[in-house]
Amino acid sequence: MDKTKAEEFVRSIRFNDLGLLPVVVQDFATRDVLMMAYMNDEALRLTLVGPHVWYFSRSRNKLWKKGETSGHLQTVRDIRVDCDRDTLLVLVDQISAACHNGYRSCFYRSISDNGETVNASRLLDPSEVYSKS
Amino acid sequence: MDKTKAEEFVRSIRFNDLGLLPVVVQDFATRDVLMMAYMNDEALRLTLVGPHVWYFSRSRNKLWKKGETSGHLQTVRDIRVDCDRDTLLVLVDQISAACHNGYRSCFYRSISDNGETVNASRLLDPSEVYSKS
Repeated sequence: MDKTKAEEFVRSIRFNDLGLLPVVVQDFATRDVLMMAYMNDEALRLTLVGPHVWYFSRSRNKLWKKGETSGHLQTVRDIRVDCDRDTLLVLVDQISAACHNGYRSCFYRSISDNGETVNASRLLDPSEVYSKS
Repeated sequence: MDKTKAEEFVRSIRFNDLGLLPVVVQDFATRDVLMMAYMNDEALRLTLVGPHVWYFSRSRNKLWKKGETSGHLQTVRDIRVDCDRDTLLVLVDQISAACHNGYRSCFYRSISDNGETVNASRLLDPSEVYSKS
């Protein structure tokens, strides 16, 4: 998307009191929900211009290109806005694992009467990916 | 889930500074993402005990059983917690439309160079559902 169109869309969005927008991230191929994170206006601009997904890290208080350290980049396939214009759904091609614990999705634990069960296989050992940073 | 187990799970969750937990809601059958909303501890307790999904409405500042007015209830099929224990993914059987605008999903608009395009059919006229309340 060109910068003028991106800016127009950014202005139409209702960021929260902290200037952030919750973003649900879904695997374009499998339709699994991979993660939930936040964008500020600049992260949204960069994501709209493409091709990769950017967030705002609340813990590090800075822009964050997903996969910049790990190589596990997300490429945008579709961007959808909700009825209230205060939440985004981004469909992505995800390289390797979205979760810093080494699972494809951050939602790898299911809750039931039996407690928590892991519903996925670990793709990689996080210590081997993130020790580089 | 029984109340003791539900309470144990509620205590393990990291609610935000407002005492709320973002919840991504996914259609169990189609895997479409339907909506994003918030639970407080009591909404989470009620959802865990089941069978329907409860939220906390930030605009009305009260507990909210999804579908109580419209009949468009959500029945829990799976509950997943993310790596940071601060976001939930709930897979549901959704009756009719999740969106108050009459669409199955709140994310019925896609963004592209051509502007916004509606990616779904409207299932119902919202004025016919919500005029009762």
